[in-house]
Amino acid sequence: MLLSGGLDSSTCLAIAHEAGFAPSALSFSYGQRHEQELSAARRVAAALGVVRHEVCTIDLRPFGGSALTSTEFEVPKGRDLELESAGIPVTYVPARNTIFLSFALAFAEVLGASDVFIGVNALDYSGYPDCRPEYIRAYEAMARLATRAGVEGRPLTIHTPLIELTKAQIIQRGLSLGVDYGLTTSCYDPDSGGRSCAECDACQLRLRGFREAGLDDPAEYLRRQ
Amino acid sequence: MLLSGGLDSSTCLAIAHEAGFAPSALSFSYGQRHEQELSAARRVAAALGVVRHEVCTIDLRPFGGSALTSTEFEVPKGRDLELESAGIPVTYVPARNTIFLSFALAFAEVLGASDVFIGVNALDYSGYPDCRPEYIRAYEAMARLATRAGVEGRPLTIHTPLIELTKAQIIQRGLSLGVDYGLTTSCYDPDSGGRSCAECDACQLRLRGFREAGLDDPAEYLRRQ
Repeated sequence: MLLSGGLDSSTCLAIAHEAGFAPSALSFSYGQRHEQELSAARRVAAALGVVRHEVCTIDLRPFGGSALTSTEFEVPKGRDLELESAGIPVTYVPARNTIFLSFALAFAEVLGASDVFIGVNALDYSGYPDCRPEYIRAYEAMARLATRAGVEGRPLTIHTPLIELTKAQIIQRGLSLGVDYGLTTSCYDPDSGGRSCAECDACQLRLRGFREAGLDDPAEYLRRQ
Repeated sequence: MLLSGGLDSSTCLAIAHEAGFAPSALSFSYGQRHEQELSAARRVAAALGVVRHEVCTIDLRPFGGSALTSTEFEVPKGRDLELESAGIPVTYVPARNTIFLSFALAFAEVLGASDVFIGVNALDYSGYPDCRPEYIRAYEAMARLATRAGVEGRPLTIHTPLIELTKAQIIQRGLSLGVDYGLTTSCYDPDSGGRSCAECDACQLRLRGFREAGLDDPAEYLRRQ
């Protein structure tokens, strides 16, 4: 399973456990500004348990093009997510989920696994083309033709247990499974101490989810909104 | 376009030029034993001309599983390709073309390009699931849903001009377009001087292609078969 150390993928890991899987986790160092998510991924993997955790180093910076991997762009702060929801945001990393799933496919093949979990979410605001259900189904169809396992009759299934949930529902689900959200980080632009900014899209979505669930977010923020 | 510096991708680059494209090239340093293919990719890019050439560093070694990226396996030498053609060879790198195409998708998105060229070949012996036409079509369908360009109405096309050609036909096509195959390298296990082994599957296929075309291979070999 793909594990970023954020709220969604951490919940996804707990769900995979509950469904009876023995998950291995894959994280990426991809030139993201927020390398602290890798520390979070390691904390979450240790807390929830994984068979194997690999961190893959890949360099997306030659491609530029996103506020998450390039200092040419500012991470937008304080945007009105309702008004902005029509477009694809500047934090979109070109083909990121396609690249991440492709590494997951390689990892699954080496592990002999035929199930991949990814914590994408289409319902809450995202605006990312590669979080939509039709994209996931097309990826799965391709993956079944791509690998040794598919050719030999063990077709891959891509599980997206969060895809139709609101952020509040994800949080409630995770808490019922014992996820400690204090270990996770979602911020696109945390400070050097790992504190979240509270103002980027990811922080806003997360804080709104906790508000809607009637709960306090245990993550550390520079300031509360 | 994906450019390995081998015979196929170099021919593919010449074909893209002839078709009127202004190609940019993407190569990978992926922990392959045969890093000399990157030097070949640079030579070929310089000789044939590209708008931009990026080399992406990605580490497939954590996944092991292939003789091309792991020293656990020996590169097979002197195999009878006719007899061996039913299985997937040990030189298969899990999900390699899926990973490479995913980076090409990111690069295309950043360049504003909607055409990707890859020199895969299904007709000659390969045994790789990710070289088949049905795989490529499924990848294209997924890619059209994956990206900003697809969402905004510029669907991606994946061009595979070599997919139905024999190695001999590829060589004849490349020579007619002025490709200097002395710049290219195909060997899975070259020596430190860049000389090809003549005995791995890739060398055997290449040498057979030149024989069938009635031509001499200008590449340097340790010994001729």
